[in-house]
Amino acid sequence: MAAALTAHQLIDKHRPTLDQALETIRTRAYWSPHPEHPKAYGENGSLSAAEGKAAFDALLGSRMDLGQPGTDDWAGGEVSPYGPALGITYPHADIEVLLPAMRAGMRAWRDAGAEMRAVTCLEILARISARTHEFAHAVMHTSGQAFMMAFQAGGPHAQDRGLEAVAYAYVEQARTPDTAEWTKPQGKRDPLALNKQFTAVPRGIALVIGCNTFPTWNGYPGLFASLATGNPVLVKPHPRAVLPLALTVQVAREVLAEAGFDPNLVALAAERPGEGIAKALAVRPEIKIIDYTGSTAFGEWLEANARQAQVYTEKAGVNTIVVESTDNYQGMLANLAFSLSLYSGQMCTTPQNLLIPRDGIATDAGHKTFDEVVADLAAAVSGLLGDDARANALLGALVNPDVKARLDAASGLGEVTLPSREISNPEFPDAVVRTPLIVKLDGAKPDAEAAYLSECFGPVSFAVAVDSAADAVELLRRTVRDKGAMTVGAYTTSDEVAEAIEEACLEECAQLSLNLTGGVYVNQTAAFSDFHGSGGNPAANSALCDGAFVANRFRVVEVRREA
Amino acid sequence: MAAALTAHQLIDKHRPTLDQALETIRTRAYWSPHPEHPKAYGENGSLSAAEGKAAFDALLGSRMDLGQPGTDDWAGGEVSPYGPALGITYPHADIEVLLPAMRAGMRAWRDAGAEMRAVTCLEILARISARTHEFAHAVMHTSGQAFMMAFQAGGPHAQDRGLEAVAYAYVEQARTPDTAEWTKPQGKRDPLALNKQFTAVPRGIALVIGCNTFPTWNGYPGLFASLATGNPVLVKPHPRAVLPLALTVQVAREVLAEAGFDPNLVALAAERPGEGIAKALAVRPEIKIIDYTGSTAFGEWLEANARQAQVYTEKAGVNTIVVESTDNYQGMLANLAFSLSLYSGQMCTTPQNLLIPRDGIATDAGHKTFDEVVADLAAAVSGLLGDDARANALLGALVNPDVKARLDAASGLGEVTLPSREISNPEFPDAVVRTPLIVKLDGAKPDAEAAYLSECFGPVSFAVAVDSAADAVELLRRTVRDKGAMTVGAYTTSDEVAEAIEEACLEECAQLSLNLTGGVYVNQTAAFSDFHGSGGNPAANSALCDGAFVANRFRVVEVRREA
Repeated sequence: MAAALTAHQLIDKHRPTLDQALETIRTRAYWSPHPEHPKAYGENGSLSAAEGKAAFDALLGSRMDLGQPGTDDWAGGEVSPYGPALGITYPHADIEVLLPAMRAGMRAWRDAGAEMRAVTCLEILARISARTHEFAHAVMHTSGQAFMMAFQAGGPHAQDRGLEAVAYAYVEQARTPDTAEWTKPQGKRDPLALNKQFTAVPRGIALVIGCNTFPTWNGYPGLFASLATGNPVLVKPHPRAVLPLALTVQVAREVLAEAGFDPNLVALAAERPGEGIAKALAVRPEIKIIDYTGSTAFGEWLEANARQAQVYTEKAGVNTIVVESTDNYQGMLANLAFSLSLYSGQMCTTPQNLLIPRDGIATDAGHKTFDEVVADLAAAVSGLLGDDARANALLGALVNPDVKARLDAASGLGEVTLPSREISNPEFPDAVVRTPLIVKLDGAKPDAEAAYLSECFGPVSFAVAVDSAADAVELLRRTVRDKGAMTVGAYTTSDEVAEAIEEACLEECAQLSLNLTGGVYVNQTAAFSDFHGSGGNPAANSALCDGAFVANRFRVVEVRREA
Repeated sequence: MAAALTAHQLIDKHRPTLDQALETIRTRAYWSPHPEHPKAYGENGSLSAAEGKAAFDALLGSRMDLGQPGTDDWAGGEVSPYGPALGITYPHADIEVLLPAMRAGMRAWRDAGAEMRAVTCLEILARISARTHEFAHAVMHTSGQAFMMAFQAGGPHAQDRGLEAVAYAYVEQARTPDTAEWTKPQGKRDPLALNKQFTAVPRGIALVIGCNTFPTWNGYPGLFASLATGNPVLVKPHPRAVLPLALTVQVAREVLAEAGFDPNLVALAAERPGEGIAKALAVRPEIKIIDYTGSTAFGEWLEANARQAQVYTEKAGVNTIVVESTDNYQGMLANLAFSLSLYSGQMCTTPQNLLIPRDGIATDAGHKTFDEVVADLAAAVSGLLGDDARANALLGALVNPDVKARLDAASGLGEVTLPSREISNPEFPDAVVRTPLIVKLDGAKPDAEAAYLSECFGPVSFAVAVDSAADAVELLRRTVRDKGAMTVGAYTTSDEVAEAIEEACLEECAQLSLNLTGGVYVNQTAAFSDFHGSGGNPAANSALCDGAFVANRFRVVEVRREA
């Protein structure tokens, strides 16, 4: 059967985009081929808002048959954090049948070479991009993100991170030539001469273990890094967030088949309630790579037990903001209020601990006491979320009952400056929508440590009184070293304090945002430019995306012959 | 104190060499800045043969004081495999003092940046190169390599591998710019604009655990990869092969100090007999990177237990040669005879199992039965080593009594075609010199498996009768998959068999040399061009040298501010 998509077509279509991505990961300037605005879709084959919504609605209550070998049952029980059950079922796999079937197409995928794999991945991303409106609803109704965030973070931003991984994977493979002629002089004798041939070979089947909150954004880097380096990819979604990754697998299988490859190079592993198949899959000898986003406990279990695999984990952390001084008090408050509110604080990058000197801080609006700073921040959050429509658009819904339970318990941890408020969502009355809680703690009291040195995932922040800037830096260091951090932020007008915080972040290996007062927030990172995580503190053993994230997903085998 | 070596001087002197190395790892053509011929030394500040010998002699019986902090004792009991005790003692460290001292200079080394680190490493290598004659004796009298091999493999070839690691480390760090301006359009509103600053930060102290047989060649890649990426390096040599690495540490400390850095960025950890400090060091929280060459048992222990560190291991493997057919029978025999003899088979790359069809093979000299092939190979080895002077120059000495014990036992494993012969060394009468043993085994007999599926490190090869080429390929696959392999070789005139063997090597991830009949041997790899190991089979979890070998030795920390 002739492939419907030829290598020539794919390279013509996607090589310029790949080249631009390769250039951008070198310059780290701004770039994205994936539009952020919903109105940018609806032409050139992409689904409009109405078409995307209709496509999503058509999925509800359906059986999504991906045509996978070894499908022995149908599984799925997603209930939207906004209320409705999705009612979609997905293939449940007999692993003994599916894993060998996934390996069958490896040789052809390997032999296709790095460029063909890259442009095939770009075609998958392009088709996902065209269905961004449909994906937005799928992400919204599995993660609880508000629509606009689900659209952007689950759509173009996730696609950017996928493309970034493809670019890193390509450049890593392309740095070794396919062939080399090696001629070593031997004085008066004939030189030694060899012809060498180098092939990037895959490690084996890659397992992607998806998360509930950012199924596509956190799933795509590993998925595309592994696929672009020649590995089949088995996607094990979070049981509450199957649909966005099932759609992704569907698109990938379709493109692979059209390009003449075995669609089983990408497959879905949905599970029955409570089945917990990740643990069993993770230690299978066929699984050679694992990408995981989720709890520290299971991440550490994977690192310790899935010894046959390369394991990339993003786990929990405790993100800190040092508030030492500012020349833009209102800007700081507005920026922080937004950071705490976005998606109800359910981002791995949301700040948790705000370290503020107990004697207060210097600002452009005069000296502010500790209590004033916390109260002003509470007021800023309240103001930002005062209108219910705007609050719903920013907060989304709590992703699951655990978050609500944690939020409810957190108000007992200290003095509440800003209580969490319940917001009703007129469109989705069953959605659980809550505003951020801010609790004051005293950093000098040992019994407060248990609270602020644990991750309290959800809309909970601690305003921690510290003795001084130096004390803040020391606590920052200890937090990153012991608990990990995906992000660190700081506000200071002092060069000396800024330098101390920078040095702490360099030594403890955490990504730092300094004095953000405008429209960029500490919780957001941009693909091609910002690294997400550092891979050097306990929150994550890898960064999105760098050479280390891709270089060990394949190996290079050399065959040499005398020339 | 002003540095005696300025950045400007070091960059002027070494940047061209670095650039050539960067170019060569891309083209993988032949290149080396380190002369292989002993007569190339003695001018431009390098030691001549006589000067190198005198320098080595002056070390014998001495105390090598490296000026390290925390030196609480002196340790060392090396005895040359050629007989004489070296009588040299080295600093024994109080780790509680030494490790903190090694961290003290990290910040300045980090802040120096990737280029300055690279050229400082190149200055270290240049000074080692100038003392190649001295190092040659040190390697010879710790590893048992014959002088010429100790000179080349322990000198220029090891220096090449060190330089290769520096080049990979540099390019990996330089791919992210130091700074970036990021400007994201916002329609009619002002764009979002950030200034970003990226810093390569070290992981922590790196531990190099040296081996007995190739202290410099196997030690330099990890040492220089870690140092060039900003990490202090603690070198824990094999207790029988301290001197070559102690000299290396001495040179590194001297160069670091002259360049204005803390010499404690590189230190030696010598140990008392039976102290076994590697195990204790490996799990110290300060140790974040480990490079190890040695037994599978300890390598696997490190991988399982040194969880706080990035662990790079080269362990044991079982190297296979498939002998299916040849159009150059004499060339094949000569090439194999040399491969089996070089350094008494004590290379991790020496072939062990020769898989030969029991019905014999087609050659340019007519059909050869299995027995004829083995007998002819035995004759080729005997011919090569017939002259005692030549035998000594090729074989060197057995590195330790374990090798001799294994050799003695191996003759009981099957029918001996070529018995091992004792060679006397007139210069060093106590040297234990043995020619290779060749034992015939039947691959169809299950009881033979225990022999040929274990590494028998030393001058022992098994000629294994297999049913067919397909059977050979299947056994090759199983051997690589279950036992690992640093090298695979094959002789065949059949395109079909060659393809099957290539496919087996691609799928099982092993480096293949096809039909070598001239002056290149399967056991040898050239830096900048050949990968040593694949990192994809049980013999080693990393390859020398590729992106994966360096990319995770540092992390990138980003600091971003509004523009």
